[in-house]
Amino acid sequence: MNKAMTEIRKVEKRLFALGYAANVIGFDDATAAPSESYEGRGEALAELSALSHNFLVNSSLPELIAEAQASELSDQEKAELRELKKEYDRICRIPADEYAEFSKLISAAQNVWSKAKAASDFEMFAPYLEKIVAARRRFAQLLDPDKAAYDVYLDQFEPGLNTEKCDAFFNQLKAGIVPLLNKITASPDKPDTSILKGPWDIEQQKKLSPEIMKLIGLDLEHVAIAESEHPFTTEFYNGDVRITTHYYEEEMLSNLYSVVHEGGHALYESHISDRYFATCLSGGVSMGIHESQSRMFENCIGRSREFLKCILPMLKKAFPDRFENADPEVLYKAVNVCSPGLIRTEADEVTYCLHIILRYELEKKLMSGELAVSDLPHEWNRLTKELLGLDVPCDAKGVLQDIHWAGGDLGYFPSYALGTAYAAQFMHAMRKEMPLDELIEKGDFAPINAWLTEHIWQYGSEHSPEWLIKNACGEEFNPGYYLDYLNSKYSEIYNL
Amino acid sequence: MNKAMTEIRKVEKRLFALGYAANVIGFDDATAAPSESYEGRGEALAELSALSHNFLVNSSLPELIAEAQASELSDQEKAELRELKKEYDRICRIPADEYAEFSKLISAAQNVWSKAKAASDFEMFAPYLEKIVAARRRFAQLLDPDKAAYDVYLDQFEPGLNTEKCDAFFNQLKAGIVPLLNKITASPDKPDTSILKGPWDIEQQKKLSPEIMKLIGLDLEHVAIAESEHPFTTEFYNGDVRITTHYYEEEMLSNLYSVVHEGGHALYESHISDRYFATCLSGGVSMGIHESQSRMFENCIGRSREFLKCILPMLKKAFPDRFENADPEVLYKAVNVCSPGLIRTEADEVTYCLHIILRYELEKKLMSGELAVSDLPHEWNRLTKELLGLDVPCDAKGVLQDIHWAGGDLGYFPSYALGTAYAAQFMHAMRKEMPLDELIEKGDFAPINAWLTEHIWQYGSEHSPEWLIKNACGEEFNPGYYLDYLNSKYSEIYNL
Repeated sequence: MNKAMTEIRKVEKRLFALGYAANVIGFDDATAAPSESYEGRGEALAELSALSHNFLVNSSLPELIAEAQASELSDQEKAELRELKKEYDRICRIPADEYAEFSKLISAAQNVWSKAKAASDFEMFAPYLEKIVAARRRFAQLLDPDKAAYDVYLDQFEPGLNTEKCDAFFNQLKAGIVPLLNKITASPDKPDTSILKGPWDIEQQKKLSPEIMKLIGLDLEHVAIAESEHPFTTEFYNGDVRITTHYYEEEMLSNLYSVVHEGGHALYESHISDRYFATCLSGGVSMGIHESQSRMFENCIGRSREFLKCILPMLKKAFPDRFENADPEVLYKAVNVCSPGLIRTEADEVTYCLHIILRYELEKKLMSGELAVSDLPHEWNRLTKELLGLDVPCDAKGVLQDIHWAGGDLGYFPSYALGTAYAAQFMHAMRKEMPLDELIEKGDFAPINAWLTEHIWQYGSEHSPEWLIKNACGEEFNPGYYLDYLNSKYSEIYNL
Repeated sequence: MNKAMTEIRKVEKRLFALGYAANVIGFDDATAAPSESYEGRGEALAELSALSHNFLVNSSLPELIAEAQASELSDQEKAELRELKKEYDRICRIPADEYAEFSKLISAAQNVWSKAKAASDFEMFAPYLEKIVAARRRFAQLLDPDKAAYDVYLDQFEPGLNTEKCDAFFNQLKAGIVPLLNKITASPDKPDTSILKGPWDIEQQKKLSPEIMKLIGLDLEHVAIAESEHPFTTEFYNGDVRITTHYYEEEMLSNLYSVVHEGGHALYESHISDRYFATCLSGGVSMGIHESQSRMFENCIGRSREFLKCILPMLKKAFPDRFENADPEVLYKAVNVCSPGLIRTEADEVTYCLHIILRYELEKKLMSGELAVSDLPHEWNRLTKELLGLDVPCDAKGVLQDIHWAGGDLGYFPSYALGTAYAAQFMHAMRKEMPLDELIEKGDFAPINAWLTEHIWQYGSEHSPEWLIKNACGEEFNPGYYLDYLNSKYSEIYNL
């Protein structure tokens, strides 16, 4: 390895350690910290963030990268330099004081957002969102003055993505989903969901979680589960990944599908190759690819007839009086009921992407300046009526429902829909090479996970989402697979 | 504030943040991490430790301290400089490569120790302990060439302590405890312990823990509880303190007194004044003072007749079929049974300090070179017979029982005995100013905690243990209070 590259690896190692610390502190915050302990944590995190910022600014990284590039490099090393350069620019092009001010703004905005949501009062949150949009537009100029602001962030979350591609993608989705939803709504056949009615003993639910984790192939010596208000996954490195869940007495599916969804994220992270350890390539490549894995496990696999057949014995063991004589077909249909609702995170597979399209349309216009923050609730409600046929009774169930914008993340939402569509395409590719349904029904995840490791998981951030899709499927991204999947699954369930 | 002092505060803030990160990572390791995740954690911690070391070495701290001392300073500022200077010397006088090598040795030694303990094979561990003793002796030379090696470490754990003081203290203890133990052993009255026989439902034990925490005055918005193999307390700052416990089905007292003991540590840390936030004075001053608080809550308070009367209704609620008709007097005597055993952490109040005296005698001689590591098991067993009248059947229950030496900590054990004796003196001082027994029986901890805050807790590391004792008790440390306490308590229980 050339001398500059050796120095660069030291920079990566230090960034890894500082990132590790921030991740553990964040995980502790969400899972174990006492309720009134944010002050000291905030000070410590701000100090660690300043330390990282200083370190990166003073790392001579641009010079080291130029020096390293003068010698011959392996493909992995080239990818490391590419990603490090991006990271360096992302942080160093924003003046330190503006960055610090933005961090404080976000911190305050999230706090105000949760109060505004509780009070269902958008006015309370609006001044913060205005500042966030303004800051994001200014930062975009600093990051890439030649690009539209929204495109700068689309590309950050999903390398290669832009508004043009998003427009085409979402138009295709809408054209496929809206007619399907209309047919479902008109269908006289409605699944009977009484099998899912609570209450469900929480201790029994807790015992089920590690069983489900083991079933889908998670190694509990490297992946642990904890509880938090909102489920999430975080990785400290490929040998230590954490998922969280939340238990509700009335809702058994919530925990079940949180575990399977976060489990998909965790399978991805824990199967990334050791060759990227402590480098900037050690995590999943994009939010889209990440969501493709979580939503594939949650929906394509987790809500399949075969998976439900496979886990029915576990459910019977946990809740004998409820599932003793359960018909797997009734369970399958109940789990897959389609019913337009106001809340994204509770949406079924058919309507989920409509929620994303709504957010995409709004944040695109916020970022271009076409839409003022003050007009946002009105537009939100108008689009909800247009796409889902529903009236929004209050902002808490409308424009205030998601934390993303309060967290400064504009351009994140499309990843959910992209991931959902990638997932169907990966399933289609796998199905050509193995008896997928049979394996799922048997609970034999080894060949499935081996295929995903070989084609996707192992590569960390070395290759782009496009490359991974081509590598896994032998063709470019095609949302048609997702529409085919939805049409075929729901036509059968609703006798369309 | 003078300019140098402002710079020094920035150094302290950064050390606080790096310490915060290391503490959270350590807590996560013991409470939440999956079993096979040490590799990445070890790399991250080593990197963060190197970062701290580099930062301190390059901080110009000696120059800043000299500059700050040229101006007028507040008492707190003077104490900060004193402690920072100590910290700087402790780290910077050891060459970086030797420090790194020692860290690796400790890491390996702890690993081998737990295997050696499992196999009860001292030979396996001996080569590591030899290296640890040699390194500690060498470091002591670097830290203070004018002091005996053991004194260097006694003073680190308990500022002001040395072998001479320890010898006098332990001789006085031995002269008081050994005759008492002989009388107890000869007494025909033995408490009936059948009331403590298991099994005890773990879920009920878990519900009891926060109740006990609240009772002794912990604020659960700032102090959280988790589970770990060995109970401990860790503080991230005064607004975020964690205690851990361990639940055993056969042993209800284990969790109960872990919560009270760790609760004592947590009360101390969470009542340290905000004026020390993010400075080097923000934690408890010494292990002795820390143990005085934990052992006071565990023993002087927690095993008192009044405390047991106070918590009996909670025990009845948690275990109605076991305590419904319990006689508080029977419970009191059962909890305070005196019975010499091999294991320090299971020792009763009478024999506890004998375990410490044994360790003190041995590590004093190890550090002076009088005792070879190879002769350690033989000496351990000889002293166990002499002090406790017991034969040691295997090294696991003898010389291998504690992790301290494997962790490189020689000179730590005396703190436990000192703290135990301090505790009795603090109780004596408090009793002069309030109806202590009455308050405990009522569960009214507010006046007790107010007194402890006023005289001890608030001061963090600003003042020495001697100062605190004088401040709290109006006189110097006097182990006689502890011997009086033991004699009076046990004479009554055993009808001596």
